[in-house]
Parts: sequence; structure tokens; C-alpha cells
Amino acid sequence: MNITKLLKPNKIAVVGASEKEGFGGDTCRNILSYMEESKYYFVNPKRDAVFGKKCYPSIDSLPEPIDLLVICTPKSTVEEMLKEGAKKGVGAAVVYASGYGEVGTEEGRLAEEALIRLCKELDIALMGPNCAGYANFIDRIYPFAFISEERDRTGAVGVVSQSGQLVLSMMDSPRMKFSYTISSGNSKVCKMEDYLEFLIDDADTKVIAMYLEGVKEPKRFVEALKKAAIKRKPIVMLKTGRSDKGQAIAASHTGSLSGADKVYDALFQKFGVIRVDDLEELMSTAQALATLNMIPEQEGFSCMSLSGGETGICADLGQLVGVDYPDFEQSTLHKLEELLPSYATPNNPLDSTATLSYDSKKYAEVLEAVMKDPNIGLVAVGYTLLQEIADNAIFYMSEALEMVCTKEWAKPVVMLPFAENTRNRDYVEKLERIGVPVLPTSLYAFKVIRNILKFAAYRPEHHNFHVAVPEVHTNSPGKSALTESESKRLIASYGIPCGRFDVAVSKEEAAEIFERMDLTAAVAKIDSPDILHKSDVGCVKLNLRDKESVKLAYEEIIMNAENHCPGAKIKGVQICEMAPMGAEMIIGVNNDPQFGPCILCGAGGVFVEVFQDVALGLAPLSADEAAEMVYSLKGVKMLQGYRGKPVYDIQSLIDTVVKVSEFACEHKDQMSELDINPVFIYEKGICAVDALYIKK
Amino acid sequence: MNITKLLKPNKIAVVGASEKEGFGGDTCRNILSYMEESKYYFVNPKRDAVFGKKCYPSIDSLPEPIDLLVICTPKSTVEEMLKEGAKKGVGAAVVYASGYGEVGTEEGRLAEEALIRLCKELDIALMGPNCAGYANFIDRIYPFAFISEERDRTGAVGVVSQSGQLVLSMMDSPRMKFSYTISSGNSKVCKMEDYLEFLIDDADTKVIAMYLEGVKEPKRFVEALKKAAIKRKPIVMLKTGRSDKGQAIAASHTGSLSGADKVYDALFQKFGVIRVDDLEELMSTAQALATLNMIPEQEGFSCMSLSGGETGICADLGQLVGVDYPDFEQSTLHKLEELLPSYATPNNPLDSTATLSYDSKKYAEVLEAVMKDPNIGLVAVGYTLLQEIADNAIFYMSEALEMVCTKEWAKPVVMLPFAENTRNRDYVEKLERIGVPVLPTSLYAFKVIRNILKFAAYRPEHHNFHVAVPEVHTNSPGKSALTESESKRLIASYGIPCGRFDVAVSKEEAAEIFERMDLTAAVAKIDSPDILHKSDVGCVKLNLRDKESVKLAYEEIIMNAENHCPGAKIKGVQICEMAPMGAEMIIGVNNDPQFGPCILCGAGGVFVEVFQDVALGLAPLSADEAAEMVYSLKGVKMLQGYRGKPVYDIQSLIDTVVKVSEFACEHKDQMSELDINPVFIYEKGICAVDALYIKK
Repeated sequence: MNITKLLKPNKIAVVGASEKEGFGGDTCRNILSYMEESKYYFVNPKRDAVFGKKCYPSIDSLPEPIDLLVICTPKSTVEEMLKEGAKKGVGAAVVYASGYGEVGTEEGRLAEEALIRLCKELDIALMGPNCAGYANFIDRIYPFAFISEERDRTGAVGVVSQSGQLVLSMMDSPRMKFSYTISSGNSKVCKMEDYLEFLIDDADTKVIAMYLEGVKEPKRFVEALKKAAIKRKPIVMLKTGRSDKGQAIAASHTGSLSGADKVYDALFQKFGVIRVDDLEELMSTAQALATLNMIPEQEGFSCMSLSGGETGICADLGQLVGVDYPDFEQSTLHKLEELLPSYATPNNPLDSTATLSYDSKKYAEVLEAVMKDPNIGLVAVGYTLLQEIADNAIFYMSEALEMVCTKEWAKPVVMLPFAENTRNRDYVEKLERIGVPVLPTSLYAFKVIRNILKFAAYRPEHHNFHVAVPEVHTNSPGKSALTESESKRLIASYGIPCGRFDVAVSKEEAAEIFERMDLTAAVAKIDSPDILHKSDVGCVKLNLRDKESVKLAYEEIIMNAENHCPGAKIKGVQICEMAPMGAEMIIGVNNDPQFGPCILCGAGGVFVEVFQDVALGLAPLSADEAAEMVYSLKGVKMLQGYRGKPVYDIQSLIDTVVKVSEFACEHKDQMSELDINPVFIYEKGICAVDALYIKK
Repeated sequence: MNITKLLKPNKIAVVGASEKEGFGGDTCRNILSYMEESKYYFVNPKRDAVFGKKCYPSIDSLPEPIDLLVICTPKSTVEEMLKEGAKKGVGAAVVYASGYGEVGTEEGRLAEEALIRLCKELDIALMGPNCAGYANFIDRIYPFAFISEERDRTGAVGVVSQSGQLVLSMMDSPRMKFSYTISSGNSKVCKMEDYLEFLIDDADTKVIAMYLEGVKEPKRFVEALKKAAIKRKPIVMLKTGRSDKGQAIAASHTGSLSGADKVYDALFQKFGVIRVDDLEELMSTAQALATLNMIPEQEGFSCMSLSGGETGICADLGQLVGVDYPDFEQSTLHKLEELLPSYATPNNPLDSTATLSYDSKKYAEVLEAVMKDPNIGLVAVGYTLLQEIADNAIFYMSEALEMVCTKEWAKPVVMLPFAENTRNRDYVEKLERIGVPVLPTSLYAFKVIRNILKFAAYRPEHHNFHVAVPEVHTNSPGKSALTESESKRLIASYGIPCGRFDVAVSKEEAAEIFERMDLTAAVAKIDSPDILHKSDVGCVKLNLRDKESVKLAYEEIIMNAENHCPGAKIKGVQICEMAPMGAEMIIGVNNDPQFGPCILCGAGGVFVEVFQDVALGLAPLSADEAAEMVYSLKGVKMLQGYRGKPVYDIQSLIDTVVKVSEFACEHKDQMSELDINPVFIYEKGICAVDALYIKK
């Protein structure tokens, strides 16, 4: 499929060119505003001219071959136009028409399938259907169906969005500057993955901003993210569906705690994709990254404002959003004391006082002092740049920024306003030219700053870049569980310690196992794929210390199982070495149909259930990834010598999480879930006390 | 003190009137732009005219009495001007000059004290020093030192701020409309409390927006909040210092978990004050409340947007910020199905589809259907209103809003944009006239919506409106603890169950107590004000079942105390009825020097320490307040029949929290802290197992 003909065509033809309001007319208006005349043709059998430009009666009548058709005519005409176009060399098309798969009817579905087949047959790269088209700002190609204020928007942010409305909103934003804006529509021929790959490879695109509802080709999507991560090209992602609980696979902890959307979090974390919460955060994070001359070399942040009130707000917002202020070095403090008025107290965040905003030399010196502090990687200057400038502070401040930010050793700087407004274009341009982005209002600004710092801190080499995308995508309707002993045997073969155990099918065999294993204390449990809550039905007996107790336990367990769970398949009674109590943890796997096994880790019991203190990671996990998961738990404090308790073997836990992830990868096409709960962690070592493996 | 002469003067005189940049010149420029000529005089011995207006050589030479002096001259001249003014009937002054208490020097402090004395002597209500003045938009009085774009800002938000810079930022915001904007400066004569009271009583002020660094007169502040709560006049509060941990009183749980700033949270919660995180949230919450025709009558929220992308963002932001979407009634769903295109799925949040934005009648019908749903109290219409209007949607939408929102039964509506911008003034005005505020960009918008809904849900009658402000403000340097038995006796007398116990001073007496109380199991513990971590030093013995064990325990405990804590004051050994294990909770009190006892409640142990799952409330607490605290805990789930555990007696816990708050109020001038930890809660009843009372 030739996406170059789609996004970088030599010649385009607008079919259904018009002067009326609507897709045809608005596309023509956009093309007239932004494209060179030699690049496009208008086609409409009912008109000789559109906005004074010659209009051809048919595609066939055009004087030269065409790369891209922009089809503004109704759905019923689309196939005919594509066929006609193919004869004229067309290799790509933009189709605005709706009424395809998105309407949810059988008719729509069939129309879409027919369209896909035709494109395949004719080798046409089709954008849409049901899209708003795109704009290529680099080559000035503008087959886009919505009108917005006329201005030059050429820049370095590449946008791809499954919503045309959101593309329009981004183009309406006065601060955004783009390489490409793509409204992908139903994405049924050219897919989101195609556009993403294109933008990652595109040298004119410095940052990618993506609005995503869902992924169609997980493998290609993962490959694209991997490529971007290695290139360190930032992808800023607005993925909706966080609050949609419909997809969460219920039943086990692992299922309900790692539902579909959380898998995206794990995926994005692996590849350093910046996930955002709304459109404004998407735009401003992308535009800030595109404007900065460099990514910060370290995570330390400082902020300098012109008043105590603003400095206080910055201190509080930093804590709220998760941006830390490291202390300044002594030498920085001394330098600042020299520079600032006597009533100022140098500190991070810094109140540089209002007087400084009228002294560009002094302001520059203070900024330099902050920037030179070895703990600082990114500096924000607090100032509410307005549209109408009523005082001179910004004149002096921008002069100071120009002095400092153009120096070779300069660290990145952003401007942080405290109230929503449209910012004065002249100053925004001036600041952008020296690599200083003007951020949106403070709460957003702090989220953008956190996003930049997180991207700066991301290290591709700490991550395992494989993702075990399953080949078998559907779960069979009747999922089946293994018994506990079968589950433990399976994972034990991957080096996960499960203690000693064996299964008896008679009370005599139970006693024989107890003797053979030379146990001092044993636990007996029913071994059945159908009895999941064993304790609740009297099918677990603890602390058995002699053969007779073991025999008795066997009998009771079988009786209880038969009484409480009639019809359950019983494979015997498991006799296990009784594990000493340790700190209770849980490790689980939920096999996502798109991205494969997602590993969950947390402290067991209420900590997971009431406080939802869990970490997720996509398999396979590197040791660094597993360690990051474990140390991200609030409950990790309970393992580190809390209140007289021992220091537990956290390394064993991390190793086990890695092993579970490896096991899960190898079973990606067979398993549905794995729940190792509890895992006891000790001062030395770890033991999986119970396990449940559920097949697809 | 005559604050009316300060804020509503008949005549004002500007001393140090000038045409230069700076406080004098900028004040004159503001006065020329906004005030009637008959209301002001300029004074400056060096000039005959300022901007073409007559300038008088001295205060004395003015032709009539003056209410308010605006002193733009340096600090050294201020006292003289006040004295001169007093002879001319002056009862109020605005003083811009700095160099007083805020610089932190002895000289500044003395100058401030002298100024305060003089104002008292002359009965002058002084704003400042070190302030930026104020503007009274109702009577067009404008003694304000900063310049911003000239426009009419008259509205209903009353601002009082301890930062002049933040007042300026609010006035710079194109959407804000004010009754008063007050920059209080050092607030040493007229205080924040004075301005707050004035605005609460002022009929032209519908909403108060306050920037606060600290409170000087806690009692008056509390009285003001109470009055506003009863009047249901909203106070929106930006109080910085959340991240300042300097003031947290360390040591006990209660201290570190309820530091000074958290007390403000408790205070604001009691009186329904809306606390915000930054300036933009302050402004837009206040302006939205001032614009709405009514406060929502219920908390149910719905949002209708023009695209699936925007609807998805709204769904996710709702969850992120804590705004719920109730389901629509069946009848609403049917009505929406009729009205919307066939491919739309009626739901809350609602994707009303873009086609509707070009059909005002249809859009109005859909809005009506949503509004009439009995579960809905507030509706947001999603639309990014820009400054330059490039399409017609807003024309049709505003027409629809006008049709619906002017109806008598209409519920409140807000407009919710998705990208930062300055909004088109004409449409903003048009929407505001029908009571529809245009909110800031989505994340802020959702915070504003949550603030409005929380204010709507606040019920003054559920709260105990007393606050036990202490008369004794200082903690003595050597705080002293009571022993456990003394602490328990104290709280037991307030009806807090502590089990049976007595203190023995010999092993024989210990045995005698055991026998007298007819115990089956006892606990022995050292009774000393100096040994806080009793278990750690072997000074607690559990499960004593006979007299001999009790005697032995007595001896061991005394020996361990003497060995491990030489010099500790030992009052004996406590013999207690051994409380059966229950669910472990903690109740504490931290006596704030300004606002008095703040009650803390949480599940004990790791839940408080690692997960910080605690609730705070200012004493005295109503039963409703205590219940709200308990039910706000995540851990409350563990008390409600969690995983086979019993349903615990939550009502007893609530009652005990109320009793602790009553106890604390009566001891507000004696106590520093109280830590009841643990409290065991049972299926029936509750028992305080350990208690520590620390005196001031």
C-alpha cells in the first residue's frame, strides 16, 4: 500500500468540488487557501468553475495522471470514482462519506467490506471512510473537510486521530504547529498503525500526538512504539476508555484489577509513550516537546515566579501533580542572595520578586544561577503572558530569556502562566524561536512539565522490548481451570518455588506421602479444577502433624467436597509441606487478547482488594521493569523492616515476577489467567502457596 | 474602624498624583479611566495638573472633606499624610509603600507598629501597607496601583487577596467580572477578616474569591465562615501552604497526619468553603457560581458533546476528577432515541452528534430531554468556543440554549470547552445573560463542575457550627504526657469505653486487683508518663490467667522498666481486663493553635501509616460529620462484612468519635494531643485499649 501517494501526492483531484457549505465546498476553500495551484484539480460534471478555477467534468478528462482522489461525493458514488481514478494512475484516496461500519448495520458492514476489497484490488491507499481528511503542512497539501481560521500552522507536531472533531480542535488552537494532521476515520484500509509508522519515519515530524480509541493490529502497533522508543521520538497519547469497565475480565483479582485499559498503561510505560488525560494536555505536551531545543538531561526542576502568591501556588501544584523541587546547592543560594533584593529568600521554587521583571540583566543573571545549579534540568519562568500587553515586564523578561537561552550550555526553559488566555502571538513566536514554549495555565503546565521530565527519565535499555502478542486471539467459551497441584507443577518447572507437595487418591496414599516427604507439618487441600474457594467449603486442613491426622483430613476433605460441591471433578487430595508464614503477596497474569500476558504484583488480601495497591507490567519483563513494579507499591514499605518486622527478600520477589512473566510469554496462546495467591515472601526466599491456572 | 469609608468613600484624594510610570501614575490613570470626576482629587505640591486635571498642593488645600486618602508617596511620608488627612475628615487610607513588617527587619517591624498605633489613634481604616489597593466596581471607586486592559469588569465576584500580583492576574482574565477586588497587603490594620465580613454582608457580591496565606484572627474568621454558610453565599478559597511540612507537629500519628494545613481542609469542610488548587480554578469556580441563575438542586450531572472523541474525554475526566454520571431514566432514553440520528447511542455522558449543532430546534429538544431527567441537576454542553468564529455551530447552539435556559423550570447549564483559548466575547456575554457560564478548558471545567456540585450538596444543618478556638495559644516548651491509666480515666469519664483497669504499686496489689475484678485474662502494662513504646521494652505482658502470673508479670515489668528506661517516672503497673481482639482503629486529636482540636480517625497500623487512610474533622463534631469521616475511609469496607469477617459496630465508632470531639473541646486550653491507639471495634461495641494524653 502506497501511503506516500496518500500523504505526499504530486497531484490531487477533488471530486465533487463545490462552492457550497459542506465537505466539498470547505475542502475547496481550504485548498485555495493553502495549496499551490499546480498541485490540484477540481472535478464536478455540473460546474465549469469553482471559486474561479477551472472545473473538469470527470476524472477521465483531467490533463495528467493523479496520485490522490479526494472524494466529496456521497457514499453511492465512491466505488465508481475509485475505479475511474485507478485508470488515471490514482494510488490513494480520501473518502469523507459515512454510512459504513460506524453505523452498526449489516448494510454498512457490507458496504465497508466491499470498499476494502476494491481498494485491495486497485491497490489504493484509502483514508477513511467517515473521516475529515488530512493536511500536510510540509508540502502544503490540504485535503481537509473542516474550516478554521486562516493562518500558517507549519511546525513539527504530527497528529493522527480517530476523531475528526478533535483534529479540528487542535487546528483551532492558536499555539499548535504541525507537520501533518490526519483524521483517520474508520481506518479500514489505511490503519492507525500505518499513519503512526509514517510519522515515526518522517524527518519533519519531531513529536507525534495521537488520539486513539482502539488498536487493530497489535503487533504492528507494538513494533511502531518500539521504533519510536529507540529513536527517542516522543509519542503523546490520548487514549479514551479509562472509565469503561465493560471490558474488564471479572472473577479473579488479576482479571478485575488489570482490565483492558490498564493494559494500555502497561504498554505505554514499556515504550515510554506519554499518556495524557485530555485534548489540551495532548496538544500542549506535544507542542512543548516540539519547541524545546533539547530534552532535559536530568529530572530536577525549578520554577521562578514574580510573587510569593505565585510561588506558593507552584509549590503546591508541584506536590499535587508529582513534580519535585530539589534543593539548590549552597553555591547557588549564595549567588541568589547576592542577586536578589534583601527581603527575598532564595529557595526552590523561587520567588524572584516583581522588581526583577523590570531589569533584564538581573533577571538573566538569576536565571543563569538557577540553570547552573547541578541539580536542575528544567526551569520554568512563571508569568501570565496575555494577548494584549498592558505592562512592560514581558519585554524585559523576554530579553533576559534571549540572553540566556541562546547560550550553548543553556538548559531547557518553559514559560508557565497562571490564568487561561490566548497569549500574545509576537511574544510566543519570539520565545519559541529560542526554544522556550509557552505552556497552558498552571495545572496543565505542571502536567506538561511532569510529562517532559518523565520522558527525559525514560531509559529504553531498562525495558524488555518484546511483547508476547498472542496468535490465538479468542478465548474459548468454556474456559477450564487446572487444579492447584497441576497449576503449581506447571509454574514450578519455570523455577518458581512452590514448596513440596503431592496428590493422594486414597487416605493411605495421603499418609504414605506424608511419610515419604518426611514432613513435620502438612497441609491437605482438595485437588479439583471445579472448587476454587477451598477453605470456604472445609476443603483445606492445616497443621497436620502425624499420619493419622493426615488420613482423617483426607476423609473429611473428600466428604466436604462431595457434600458442598456435588458434581465437582475431584482429582484427589494434595498433601503439601506447610509453608511458614511470611509476608503475603500476590502475583497474577491476565492474558490480554491484544497485547498478551499482563503481570500483576501486589501485597495480598485487603491491600490489593481494598486499597488497590497493585503494579502492572506487560510480559516479558526485564529485571528493571519488575523492580520498578515492586518498588512502585505503597506496601513495599511493609517489606523493608517496617515496625520491627524483618527485611524481606524483595530480590526474590522481583526474580519471581520476571519468571512468571517468562512463563506467561511461553503460554500466551494457551493461558487465560494465572493467579498465584498468596505468595509468601521471607527474609530469604519466597514460596507460592496456592496457584490457579486457567486455560483459554 | 470604618470600613465603609475605606471601600465605599464619597470623596478620595490621591497623594503623590503623577503622570510617571509607577504606583502614583498608574493609580491616576486607573482613576481617570474608571471614576467620575466629582469623586476624586489629585494632590502633589510639585504639579498644577495631572493628565490635564487640577492638582492641589496639599491635603489641607482641598476644597471639601475627604473620606479616603490614597497614599502613593514613599514610606517616610506616610505618617505625616495620615495626620494631615485626619484634619480633613479622612477615615480611611490605602498605603502602597513597602518596607514594613514584610521585610523581616527590626526597623520594618517598628515602622509597622508605629503605623498601626497611629491609625488607631486617628481612627483610620488602613488598607496595606505593601498593598496594590482595591477597586469597587459597584460605585466606580478605583484606587488601584496596577494597569490592565481597559474594559468594564462590573459583576458579582468579590475578591480579597493577600497577593497584589494575583489580584492583577484576576483582573487580566477576560472572563472575570467583579463587585470588589481587594489587595490587602500586610493586612495589619484592616485585616482579611474585615474584608471577608464586608463581602459576606455586601448585597452586590454574590460569590467571594479569596487568596489566603494565613489567618490572624481565628475566631472572627470562623464567625465569618459561619455567616456565609448560613447565607449560602459561596466562598471559593485558594489557600497556599499545602506542601509546607514545616508546621506539622511530628511525634505521634495524630500530629504527623493532621498538620496545620490539613486543619484548614477540616475547617473548610465544616463550613462548605470550596477549596481550590490554583488561580484559574479560583477564578472560574467563582465566576461560574456568579453566572448561574441557581445552584443545582441535586448532584446528578450530565454532559452532551458533539463527537464520540469529546464524549470519551468527558467520561474519563469525570472519573479522574470525581464527577459521577447517573444513568438516564428509561423515558429519557426513549425520548433521546427518537431525537438523535439512528447511529447515535443515547447514554450519559451523551454524544449528541455533530449534526445536531446545525439544528437549534433539535438541539434544544435534546437538551430539554436531558434536563428533564429526574436524576440530573446540572448539564454541561461540550463545545470549544473560540475567539474568532469560523463555523456556525455556536450560532445554532446558543439559539437552542436561549430557548431552553430561559424557561422557568430550566436546570443550570454550563459550557465546557476542550482547548485553551480566549472565548468570543459576544457569545460569552450572550450566554452569561441567560445564566450559562463558559468554563475554562476541560480538566479545569470538571474541577469547577465538581466544586459546584459539592457546594450544592453541602447541608449546613448536618454540621456542628462551633469551633473550639483555644484561648491559650502557645504550647509550653516542656509538654508533659499523662500515663496510660490517667489518660484512660480522663476519657472514660466522657463515656468512651476503655475496659476495666486499675493500677498496682506492688505485686501483691496487682494480684489483689486481678482477683477483685474477677478477671479470666488480664494484661499488665507499665504506667509511666515517660515510657511511650511499652511493648518494645518488655513492659507489656498479655494473657495473664492467674494471680501468680500477674505477680510475676509485675516484677518483670518493673525490672524491664528500670533496666531499659532508667530515670523514667514509674507510677505503677496497670492491670487491665484483656480486651478480645477486634478490628483495630485509631482515634486521635491534634490541638491546632489557631482552630483548636482536630479529630483524626482511621484504621490502625499500616492502614494509617503506609496508606495514610485517615479522615479529619474540626471539633466539636455532629453525628453527621463523624459519620461522614468514618465512611470516607477506604478501610471502612473492612468493617462491613469483608471476606467472611463480621459486620462491625460502625455506629459505636461514630459515637466514640463524637465523644472524643466533645472531650477535646472541653480540654482545648489544656491539651496538646490525644492518641487513642488502638481502639478495638467489635460486632457490638468498642474499646479504647491504649490512650496517651499530652498536656500543653
